Amino acid sequence: MSDLIQKLQWRYATKKMDPSKVVPQEKVDRILEAIRLTATSSGLQQYEVLVVTNKELREKIKPVAWNQGQITDGSHLLVFAAWDNYTEERINMMFDLVNDERGFRNEGWENYRNMLLNTYPKRDAETNYQHAARQAYIGLGTALIAAAEEQVDSTPMEGFDPDAVDQILGLREKGLRSVILLPLGYREAENDWLVNLKKVRRSKENFITEIK
Amino acid sequence: MSDLIQKLQWRYATKKMDPSKVVPQEKVDRILEAIRLTATSSGLQQYEVLVVTNKELREKIKPVAWNQGQITDGSHLLVFAAWDNYTEERINMMFDLVNDERGFRNEGWENYRNMLLNTYPKRDAETNYQHAARQAYIGLGTALIAAAEEQVDSTPMEGFDPDAVDQILGLREKGLRSVILLPLGYREAENDWLVNLKKVRRSKENFITEIK
Repeated sequence: MSDLIQKLQWRYATKKMDPSKVVPQEKVDRILEAIRLTATSSGLQQYEVLVVTNKELREKIKPVAWNQGQITDGSHLLVFAAWDNYTEERINMMFDLVNDERGFRNEGWENYRNMLLNTYPKRDAETNYQHAARQAYIGLGTALIAAAEEQVDSTPMEGFDPDAVDQILGLREKGLRSVILLPLGYREAENDWLVNLKKVRRSKENFITEIK
Repeated sequence: MSDLIQKLQWRYATKKMDPSKVVPQEKVDRILEAIRLTATSSGLQQYEVLVVTNKELREKIKPVAWNQGQITDGSHLLVFAAWDNYTEERINMMFDLVNDERGFRNEGWENYRNMLLNTYPKRDAETNYQHAARQAYIGLGTALIAAAEEQVDSTPMEGFDPDAVDQILGLREKGLRSVILLPLGYREAENDWLVNLKKVRRSKENFITEIK
């Protein structure tokens, strides 16, 4: 079995975390770096990650997230927050950064920038937000593997009131909207109903179709 | 640097693949297994993966995908296709499978099934499809790492006409809608404009916010 398959077998959506355990900062940093490095559509990185360790804020988030205990029992709460819209400024920011870092302008790349500038900003904000939000899930898929590599437990959560979380964290003022919560911590195995249950997935035959 | 960070640094959206090279089936199988094992919302696995090696079908898909050559120059084209809607049948299929595999029924789990049955099927199909499509991006984030682990190149693509791809592959009849294309193959470095350019990402400071 490959390393990656082992990590994916090891991880599970932890239901009870041990509030006395803290994930070391260097592990959190490597998880964040993996998210930062992964792909996004057109390389725009159209989301950001907030790392909430502040206990009061996490206590405020918990009741708007079905009172899921991992939010306060974990040591770090990652909040994936997507751009609320595509603007010319945001698109140019990323293309300018690429040119600066590479030290040259490339005609094909500039044509691509113009294509995006002529397409995205004129679409409605909700369509753009939905597109940006999808990219955050690439980051989530990456974070789940990165956490497993660090032997850190995590619980991906869509079950929360995004407007309430946006308000608690002041996201809308920054042009962001919360998409996914991901508490990081360590399992409290004796109180976790899921920890010893079999991971169930559809069979290869029911999930994959080969067309030869 | 961790293994995972190295893999993420190695990978890039390959722009030119070598049509003479074929990814060995055991590598493709491990990439698919990683996708199958990763997380989805409520564990529903609300998408499937088609593996198209058929040359004629890939030749048909290329013109509805901006003529991107990787579609035919790669050896395998993965198509992530999400459920077009949530139905009672689909939700029950997955909850029944979990009960069968674990060998028991759990009251909390049954309550959760009923909550989903009372929520998802009555929402409009587009909302449900959008939610299912997001999950495919977790699979994509996983696939990019899995391919890198196998030293296989890949190119995530949103730039295609999903209705046309659905028609070419007969997806709508199966209740599926195409979301992402991911050709797998090997870079033809001497003809790839991107291969030697620096990977550019926003700085940690501009991507991550710590709230202590």
